[in-house]
Amino acid sequence: MSEQVQSNGKIINDPVYGFIDIRPGIIYDLVEHPYFQRLRRIKQLGLTNYVYPGTMHTRFQHALGAMYLMGLAIDVLRSKGHNISDEESTAVMIAILLHDIGHGPFSHTLEHSLVTGISHEDLSIILMECLNKEFSGQLTLAIEIFLDNYPKHFLHQLVSSQLDMDRLDYLRRDSFFSGVSEGVVGSDRIIKMLEVSDDKLVVESKGIYSIEKFLIARRLMYWQVYLHKTVIASEQMLVNILLRAKELAGKNEDLFATPALRYFLYNNINKEYFKAGSDKLTESISCFTQLDDYDIITSIKIWATHHDKALSVLCYRLLNRKLFKIRISNRPFSSEEINSFRKKAENSMGLTTEQAQYFAGSDSISNFAYDPGDYHINILYKSGEVTDISKASDMLNTETLSKTVTKYFLYFTI
Amino acid sequence: MSEQVQSNGKIINDPVYGFIDIRPGIIYDLVEHPYFQRLRRIKQLGLTNYVYPGTMHTRFQHALGAMYLMGLAIDVLRSKGHNISDEESTAVMIAILLHDIGHGPFSHTLEHSLVTGISHEDLSIILMECLNKEFSGQLTLAIEIFLDNYPKHFLHQLVSSQLDMDRLDYLRRDSFFSGVSEGVVGSDRIIKMLEVSDDKLVVESKGIYSIEKFLIARRLMYWQVYLHKTVIASEQMLVNILLRAKELAGKNEDLFATPALRYFLYNNINKEYFKAGSDKLTESISCFTQLDDYDIITSIKIWATHHDKALSVLCYRLLNRKLFKIRISNRPFSSEEINSFRKKAENSMGLTTEQAQYFAGSDSISNFAYDPGDYHINILYKSGEVTDISKASDMLNTETLSKTVTKYFLYFTI
Amino acid sequence: MSEQVQSNGKIINDPVYGFIDIRPGIIYDLVEHPYFQRLRRIKQLGLTNYVYPGTMHTRFQHALGAMYLMGLAIDVLRSKGHNISDEESTAVMIAILLHDIGHGPFSHTLEHSLVTGISHEDLSIILMECLNKEFSGQLTLAIEIFLDNYPKHFLHQLVSSQLDMDRLDYLRRDSFFSGVSEGVVGSDRIIKMLEVSDDKLVVESKGIYSIEKFLIARRLMYWQVYLHKTVIASEQMLVNILLRAKELAGKNEDLFATPALRYFLYNNINKEYFKAGSDKLTESISCFTQLDDYDIITSIKIWATHHDKALSVLCYRLLNRKLFKIRISNRPFSSEEINSFRKKAENSMGLTTEQAQYFAGSDSISNFAYDPGDYHINILYKSGEVTDISKASDMLNTETLSKTVTKYFLYFTI
Amino acid sequence: MSEQVQSNGKIINDPVYGFIDIRPGIIYDLVEHPYFQRLRRIKQLGLTNYVYPGTMHTRFQHALGAMYLMGLAIDVLRSKGHNISDEESTAVMIAILLHDIGHGPFSHTLEHSLVTGISHEDLSIILMECLNKEFSGQLTLAIEIFLDNYPKHFLHQLVSSQLDMDRLDYLRRDSFFSGVSEGVVGSDRIIKMLEVSDDKLVVESKGIYSIEKFLIARRLMYWQVYLHKTVIASEQMLVNILLRAKELAGKNEDLFATPALRYFLYNNINKEYFKAGSDKLTESISCFTQLDDYDIITSIKIWATHHDKALSVLCYRLLNRKLFKIRISNRPFSSEEINSFRKKAENSMGLTTEQAQYFAGSDSISNFAYDPGDYHINILYKSGEVTDISKASDMLNTETLSKTVTKYFLYFTI
Repeated sequence: MSEQVQSNGKIINDPVYGFIDIRPGIIYDLVEHPYFQRLRRIKQLGLTNYVYPGTMHTRFQHALGAMYLMGLAIDVLRSKGHNISDEESTAVMIAILLHDIGHGPFSHTLEHSLVTGISHEDLSIILMECLNKEFSGQLTLAIEIFLDNYPKHFLHQLVSSQLDMDRLDYLRRDSFFSGVSEGVVGSDRIIKMLEVSDDKLVVESKGIYSIEKFLIARRLMYWQVYLHKTVIASEQMLVNILLRAKELAGKNEDLFATPALRYFLYNNINKEYFKAGSDKLTESISCFTQLDDYDIITSIKIWATHHDKALSVLCYRLLNRKLFKIRISNRPFSSEEINSFRKKAENSMGLTTEQAQYFAGSDSISNFAYDPGDYHINILYKSGEVTDISKASDMLNTETLSKTVTKYFLYFTI
Repeated sequence: MSEQVQSNGKIINDPVYGFIDIRPGIIYDLVEHPYFQRLRRIKQLGLTNYVYPGTMHTRFQHALGAMYLMGLAIDVLRSKGHNISDEESTAVMIAILLHDIGHGPFSHTLEHSLVTGISHEDLSIILMECLNKEFSGQLTLAIEIFLDNYPKHFLHQLVSSQLDMDRLDYLRRDSFFSGVSEGVVGSDRIIKMLEVSDDKLVVESKGIYSIEKFLIARRLMYWQVYLHKTVIASEQMLVNILLRAKELAGKNEDLFATPALRYFLYNNINKEYFKAGSDKLTESISCFTQLDDYDIITSIKIWATHHDKALSVLCYRLLNRKLFKIRISNRPFSSEEINSFRKKAENSMGLTTEQAQYFAGSDSISNFAYDPGDYHINILYKSGEVTDISKASDMLNTETLSKTVTKYFLYFTI
Repeated sequence: MSEQVQSNGKIINDPVYGFIDIRPGIIYDLVEHPYFQRLRRIKQLGLTNYVYPGTMHTRFQHALGAMYLMGLAIDVLRSKGHNISDEESTAVMIAILLHDIGHGPFSHTLEHSLVTGISHEDLSIILMECLNKEFSGQLTLAIEIFLDNYPKHFLHQLVSSQLDMDRLDYLRRDSFFSGVSEGVVGSDRIIKMLEVSDDKLVVESKGIYSIEKFLIARRLMYWQVYLHKTVIASEQMLVNILLRAKELAGKNEDLFATPALRYFLYNNINKEYFKAGSDKLTESISCFTQLDDYDIITSIKIWATHHDKALSVLCYRLLNRKLFKIRISNRPFSSEEINSFRKKAENSMGLTTEQAQYFAGSDSISNFAYDPGDYHINILYKSGEVTDISKASDMLNTETLSKTVTKYFLYFTI
Repeated sequence: MSEQVQSNGKIINDPVYGFIDIRPGIIYDLVEHPYFQRLRRIKQLGLTNYVYPGTMHTRFQHALGAMYLMGLAIDVLRSKGHNISDEESTAVMIAILLHDIGHGPFSHTLEHSLVTGISHEDLSIILMECLNKEFSGQLTLAIEIFLDNYPKHFLHQLVSSQLDMDRLDYLRRDSFFSGVSEGVVGSDRIIKMLEVSDDKLVVESKGIYSIEKFLIARRLMYWQVYLHKTVIASEQMLVNILLRAKELAGKNEDLFATPALRYFLYNNINKEYFKAGSDKLTESISCFTQLDDYDIITSIKIWATHHDKALSVLCYRLLNRKLFKIRISNRPFSSEEINSFRKKAENSMGLTTEQAQYFAGSDSISNFAYDPGDYHINILYKSGEVTDISKASDMLNTETLSKTVTKYFLYFTI
């Protein structure tokens, strides 16, 4: 009654949903694959545990949870008369299981430092294609759905849209582990109200309040958890550590690093390294799939005694949670302000001007509650009419809803 | 470890909050009083259990829960340096404990049929004053706070405002028992963020997302639970039953009734009966405090075999959940439409024209998510500035927020 | 998304399990039947809400919950390769849905006062047979299973055995509503581990700790909730009220009563009245199925002003929770002790000797954690061996486990 | 409303208990100390996440949770009239906060491989004494209580006994994160029933069923989680990896290792290294407090490509969850059986005889549900009598209760 092979597959105990069954077959085999097992070593929310200590949960758990919800959604749509073949069902389960397979450790942070110019979505595709070769084409349909190249577009929307199983799982799961109970989303209820109209995933009109609630809960999770200022401070410190380490590596300074991390530190890894046909592709994939939270944190522990003062101080502080101070504003901060903080750091800590740059700076964060992109949340009325939620709801401010909110932050040490 | 006298009071097991302590003293004595014990026999949500079978919880539980939250709120405000004396603390606890003491069974329904022209708030005051006499003035301060006649107005706001302990308890409790988990409100979190500024109850600015969430959850509970169309259908049927019974009583027809109910059926009870100094006051209070869900439902059971066909059919149907059909619209229904349904009922059921009126009709329901009345929800910024939530939030549609939404419904039988 | 007719049946929101689907067909029709709807008006735990105010839940909710668990159990057994036809599945669902249909209000109490010599199980059968006639034999298989006359005995065991869906639901549900979280039983986990061996319902050996836990939780619920001394005190007071009322009725005293209750008060209803072929059967069934909590409580409210002092004082006290005092002992109480308390009541309250008998007395309660009756809890080892839990567990005291514990109580007033 | 400095300390969001307040002062400073922050990087349950993926929670969370429960327990005991001074309260809070400070990563595993002859309790004392120096004697009373040298012995029992806050927290927390809901312990209820009698921590007699439940839940957690056979398999694999690495280090083979881990690999660290006055003490403490899960897992990742086949195969397998097979028995396994498995491994994998020893073997595990050591669970009757739970309960098998259960396991590869 736990994560263990049974005669008929595996049953996983999930504190969020209870039991998750995995039957023998391609899905079982993918879960067992080292690429997927690696997700056990990547926390879903990076450094958020510095603010919400319960958020130690991993991308492994999230991927399984999203797949579980997909199973429920398929059952609901079938029960409402929509034809979904067993092949399609398996493919869409695979697509959601692997949708995050391209995430590296502290993903958003790394994208600002070590692995630039290539998104985790691109990497997910690259890894899915590797796996497809290994499993003799069994993932072909899943990849088509993932890329939205498959005619039944509602299947893609279950994987990736404003109301996909990814979001439904992560909001609920992150809320559960953070203890921010207000972020809880009624995933069961929303799934019960899913429908398909004109090949689009829609929500029955009686679900309108649940969708409003979902959008508000998501917004709350963004500002209260994902973009919490202490989380931002931690992540910025990690970015600066990695940038400094890369700077030093560029000067051929000696730095402790696992082989996989060394590859990303001592090379300027970018899109070219992951291009199909590139002679570096194999090595890049191999190194990438060996990288996880452990490489990063262990290096930081060792770097805390490095002779470069900028690197060692930042590492010591991150480890012991002496984080940057943060100011948030609706307007950009002036370079004078930033420089005055850098100057202070330089003087008080005995740093060089170059080193001091890593101790104060500014950047922006943004979020939109609801992205009016290709795949809206559509409400289906009994009349058959379909309307976007931003019009269907008289409660939500439609402008705010679709407007990107950008906030600027200034970080510094004192 | 249950509802039992302990050497030092009583500990009540509440499935929502865990343990609720009641120490010996005036609060303990009020809980034991027949007026308060009577709330055990009045369901919080009337006939809502016809839609959500779990909602069998009583006003007794709600009153205790709201008092429990009040205890938390007092602790929080004291810990933030606000002076609240023990007398004030006891008084505000009493005020919230008794805020609903004037509710009768199926309260909103009765106000449309048997007890007209006097609100449950008025009745609460009347009963509190009775109790104050009985307890030699120990409720004087509580009554002042309840009536907002006490200089520290924030104490009143804890009892009655847009963010009072009443709302915080009932939303959470009704959500718990209905199983509508999306209605869950983070009462703990909101209470932790309460502050007092300029004698007003305010919320610290970091709580803005929680308040947005609270308003949306409340709206969801309104449309999904409190104003659910089947709830409306049940309540309308009950109103019609009582109106019919009163009609018959007015004609001196014999009707089964408990003595307390008889008083309200065979007299036209209105405000005058409850006026201080009225010679009817004692009898009115006595009858009112004997009335509960049991009088109403038992009578309906007996009336199901009454010779008046309108009465007996309605009663039989309510008991066996053969409810009115309902149509909802944003516009009023025409009298032609209503009459055509009455005609149909008349013909198909062999009723007189007069009787048929009880089988179809129309009315309206309305709700506002946020009432811009005297006591707003105010957000306190670190600068000391205080702003109404409808301005502080860029997410919520301020017009919608403060606009009364009215929907019309047509009920009928087929 | 609530208790409402959908195009494809009904979905009920249950705070314990989430959503319960009821598809159109015989089960749907039975739920709609007045006999079943009546269970909405009968609380599962009678007067227990005097101790645990949350326990207002009804037999209606329990019956639906047990049926929900039955659905899960059938799915599990089928997935393990056991053949259960759709007819059998429907029949066993019906059997569990109706297993408590013969319960009256305050069931155990009534069996000591008004309806003697006939158990609620007998009445369940009688009502099922009525329904079977009404539904043209569609319940025949369900009745066979209920009576254990059907060859596949494991189906009966799902309905009635030491580990049936009845117990699994009520322990979890009563625990949920009482707030006694320690009584929570992992019904999901136990159901996942059910198996059938040699036509017996068994539990896979890895479930042994869950079963130990189940037995202990059940024991805890017994002593902490079901046999809580204040519950006993309340129920005894109700028994005495009904006995006194019957005594007065026997003397042709006039007593307020609904017609259904009148039937049971003014006649000595026993087994004969419910015998097949009896000319009283129709009336007895009709009266019984009209009786619910409302008849009893309303009468008590009225009787609180009856001229018989014994009756009125008891009623007033029950309504206002001025309950008997209770002493518990492992030995019977002496008649001297009882009489001395009766004498005290007689003197202090100005009662006659006959009346005083209702104010003090003694009785016993008993419970066994595990009944070594026909249908044990059997543990299935991987070897295929099957052993009774009392032998399989090295933890539980097997003698205690199967021994009836009897406690004596003395109740009195002061 | 999260882990962030507030004007008046810190509020931590805990998914298990809600909010945990930490006021400024010594406790706040200890939480901020690197020794305590390090517990963020040590999972509470080591490799258990291979079986229950949710169990990623850390010793940091557990220590804070146990301290939270201690606060509740102090409140309860004070409210029952027991005198606990503010100094004692702070001291007992510190004692529980730091009770696990001496745990290393994968603690039980390390004690079988790298750090032998010294228990985590010893290390906790050593670290507390370091901290006491650093904080100028502010921990003196806490250490006295921890060592049971303080006259009020019940304070020690709150920290360490059969019913201490440590156990109450970890059972509930491990149950929460594993999703094994049956392990849930009613910590609130048990704490409410704590009492002190004759300087002993006791439980009021009405709590007897809760204690039975606690013991059974604990037993369930042992066999279902802590000693789950797949957990055993994982831990044994980790032990063998570390033993092999140490073997290689002893031969001066080059091995990747962080400096802290290198210290333990290339020296035979034992009790002497941690003795007061030892010249190695400072280095030993420094290395120990730098060691966490990250050092171990990162090394294993690198060792997966080591040229020693025993080491690299074991590491690869652990990382990718290709674990040992396990057989459990009540009797020891014969050396013939073990050797035959080693032989098989040798042949099939091309290992040397020496290497093959790491691929099969045997050991034992044991557990006692209830340790009849110095500090029993005592039940306090209203008469004032105090009795051990094993006698007070007629349900639990007293022999089993106090008997160590030993099971043998054989692990192997195929």
